[in-house]
Amino acid sequence: MSSALIAVIAGVGAGTGAAVARKFSSLYPVVCLARNPDNYNDLVKEINGNGGKAIGISTDISDSSSVKAAFSKIGDEFGKDYSIAAAIFNASGGFARKPFLELTEEEFQTPLNVSARGAFLFSQATLPLLLNATSKSKYPPSLIFTGATASVKGSALMSSFATGKWAVRSLSQSLAREFGPKGVHVSHAIIDGVIDIPRTKEWLKDLGPEAKISAEGIADSYWHLHTQPRTTFTWEVDIRPAVEKW
Amino acid sequence: MSSALIAVIAGVGAGTGAAVARKFSSLYPVVCLARNPDNYNDLVKEINGNGGKAIGISTDISDSSSVKAAFSKIGDEFGKDYSIAAAIFNASGGFARKPFLELTEEEFQTPLNVSARGAFLFSQATLPLLLNATSKSKYPPSLIFTGATASVKGSALMSSFATGKWAVRSLSQSLAREFGPKGVHVSHAIIDGVIDIPRTKEWLKDLGPEAKISAEGIADSYWHLHTQPRTTFTWEVDIRPAVEKW
Amino acid sequence: MSSALIAVIAGVGAGTGAAVARKFSSLYPVVCLARNPDNYNDLVKEINGNGGKAIGISTDISDSSSVKAAFSKIGDEFGKDYSIAAAIFNASGGFARKPFLELTEEEFQTPLNVSARGAFLFSQATLPLLLNATSKSKYPPSLIFTGATASVKGSALMSSFATGKWAVRSLSQSLAREFGPKGVHVSHAIIDGVIDIPRTKEWLKDLGPEAKISAEGIADSYWHLHTQPRTTFTWEVDIRPAVEKW
Amino acid sequence: MSSALIAVIAGVGAGTGAAVARKFSSLYPVVCLARNPDNYNDLVKEINGNGGKAIGISTDISDSSSVKAAFSKIGDEFGKDYSIAAAIFNASGGFARKPFLELTEEEFQTPLNVSARGAFLFSQATLPLLLNATSKSKYPPSLIFTGATASVKGSALMSSFATGKWAVRSLSQSLAREFGPKGVHVSHAIIDGVIDIPRTKEWLKDLGPEAKISAEGIADSYWHLHTQPRTTFTWEVDIRPAVEKW
Repeated sequence: MSSALIAVIAGVGAGTGAAVARKFSSLYPVVCLARNPDNYNDLVKEINGNGGKAIGISTDISDSSSVKAAFSKIGDEFGKDYSIAAAIFNASGGFARKPFLELTEEEFQTPLNVSARGAFLFSQATLPLLLNATSKSKYPPSLIFTGATASVKGSALMSSFATGKWAVRSLSQSLAREFGPKGVHVSHAIIDGVIDIPRTKEWLKDLGPEAKISAEGIADSYWHLHTQPRTTFTWEVDIRPAVEKW
Repeated sequence: MSSALIAVIAGVGAGTGAAVARKFSSLYPVVCLARNPDNYNDLVKEINGNGGKAIGISTDISDSSSVKAAFSKIGDEFGKDYSIAAAIFNASGGFARKPFLELTEEEFQTPLNVSARGAFLFSQATLPLLLNATSKSKYPPSLIFTGATASVKGSALMSSFATGKWAVRSLSQSLAREFGPKGVHVSHAIIDGVIDIPRTKEWLKDLGPEAKISAEGIADSYWHLHTQPRTTFTWEVDIRPAVEKW
Repeated sequence: MSSALIAVIAGVGAGTGAAVARKFSSLYPVVCLARNPDNYNDLVKEINGNGGKAIGISTDISDSSSVKAAFSKIGDEFGKDYSIAAAIFNASGGFARKPFLELTEEEFQTPLNVSARGAFLFSQATLPLLLNATSKSKYPPSLIFTGATASVKGSALMSSFATGKWAVRSLSQSLAREFGPKGVHVSHAIIDGVIDIPRTKEWLKDLGPEAKISAEGIADSYWHLHTQPRTTFTWEVDIRPAVEKW
Repeated sequence: MSSALIAVIAGVGAGTGAAVARKFSSLYPVVCLARNPDNYNDLVKEINGNGGKAIGISTDISDSSSVKAAFSKIGDEFGKDYSIAAAIFNASGGFARKPFLELTEEEFQTPLNVSARGAFLFSQATLPLLLNATSKSKYPPSLIFTGATASVKGSALMSSFATGKWAVRSLSQSLAREFGPKGVHVSHAIIDGVIDIPRTKEWLKDLGPEAKISAEGIADSYWHLHTQPRTTFTWEVDIRPAVEKW
């Protein structure tokens, strides 16, 4: 087997993760990471059925041994000399929107672990393999972090989510500065709005059919980031529906 | 003649403006505005020679009667019911990098006029025609402003440039909030680095062949902004070479 | 007459300007600049009646000859070797909150002239005299710019105000970087809310007696900025009522 | 014993923490928290010797049971109905400035725990007692977080420090928005430069005697924040030496 060049997506669910996996599967075998296999099983079948290549691995991105095991399985699948052309960190812990003094320590810590430690573990696992890809990949290898409104705004009642998202944005900036000159393109996307997924089907209906962000639109923007040449790297984009108030 | 759908670029020179004109000429007739016809004459010939359609109009973007005259000529050329699919404001006045107390009032005012008043006049001239395009254009009509490092940082000695660039960034944000819900996509691009044009040929050579921003890369990113659907509008991107220190 | 050390406030009205003049008059003779003498006449009498020293000069801060005339009068009053311990730029043009396409060029340009050109002219007039004060003033000489919510947010319909405020913020940052090392303390204050003045007496009453910013509180914060030593300069503060939504 | 009104400082060392403790001891009994008693023993003696009142408690601010034990001891000392007039979070874990791929998980996690979890635990412990103080304290009760350059910039090689500092800044903004309307003044100070303490004695000597931030200057600014009335709350200030490049 010649050396494989793959895409890895952490935090695959119904929205951004799935759309990104579909988009990047047009050029790369894709690995879908999520804690719950229900989040990727149908997607993996769909991509494989459409002539692409995909595998799913149940992974707790905030746990170093789980992350290690996942990348060991990826090596089993793609050979020891595989490289990563694109790594997308799309994980977010569920969080509690509630008055600060009602938060338990666990409610504060768990989303922070998924966001900040998860982003750290995912970056440490993928960056050596992204660096390996610089000479092999048509496009500069990409490490893309999915952010949110809460990545740039600490709203009242949102501290359990926002602290981790600010931490990830910070990490992405440090990594962009360190790894850009080494040829890895590190980006951060502020997704500012509600994504159009089954769970949000009934939301914002009064604002019309375009009030929610299309996950495919996000995937197209991630693909654009991925295809930017070394002379023209974007660190950050924001993305929102035309009708969004901001 | 059926109603035309065109692109208008203000501030066409050797770099971003020319690359954007070439890129957008693949789908639209393009109008190139610059004070000095030398800045667009060859480009207009080139585009027309390659099967595209381009015209150039000598325009002082900071002068309302000059802007009015330019759009009157555009109407003469494309018919009274033309619309604008993409308007790119890429103008910048020359500026003096010098100690603040050595700046003359004119040295402070002129680049501010080009940036802030120019952006105002260009936006007022194009927005009605961009709004007209919402039902005709395949892609949401786009109004894109070219920014710089100085759009987000007021460095010492750079006040004559930065004040206007901050003003333009502010204007672009106000317009994005007002016109996004009406279907016009307003964006701002922070071009953070030196653009690779004949004038900068000898700059940054020690940093290698990719130390300067490719104008074509910028044009590709503007095109990506233009093709984003209404569910997925980006207001701001930053663009810099992989090797840039920031 | 020994060399005078004075404070100059541009944009004296019922709120911040008057409170700052009163506060700084405890240590310095104060010069109040405003276009309309009604804005400072009573204040000047009040300060002089309370044992302080104040003069008012009718000045159009956006007009270079008017600014020149004002500083000539200050020289007549305080002697040719006077210095400035504190210069506060508090001017804002009235502006039209309206849809962008309904703005006249004058409605856009006039507040921009007051903010951006006014700040430029005021800074050029005061900085040489602030530099002169570095060896004479107990506290590092201060140049303070009053900003607003619109200094950091370009809201829809607010472009005629925000563009100038962003420009001033940018200028203040460039000047802080250039003149800090020379001993002049340049600051910018984001006043984020409604100031409690006669004109706003009936506003926000349902939010209680503390829903509006006290001009005296702003003046106290400006005084604190003025008294910071060279080891501890603040460029920017934000100020808002405890109950403000932001 | 009548109900006590105290100040609590987490992260007392040679610089900011000690200066803040001295400053606030002029009005309040102060509690000094640090892991290592060497960091506060002399200070506590000094304050008590100068007619103030201080106690020190060895505390691991990133550990909930240690924090709980500390506040239990504070209750033993000051009575069950004490309130907090000022709580200052000044803790920072030591961190490794090194290439990202050389960081161990522990090197990344430990400073994040001190910053983000520490700020969470300290805020949860102090906010109920700050809320209690709103009717008793002359000045609005204050919760102040000490930030750094790394609170707003994710530099290369600094990710193990910056991620936690961004998280704390985010938390401080969420808390300012939630607790401001309840009368607690939450602030964040960006300390942008080297603080003048014994450990940094030899640093930056070529830039002159004022190249380092005076901890007393920081304490004066924190005191100013504390004394701001409810009409005039500042969330954020930046502080740096006049000569600092930024």
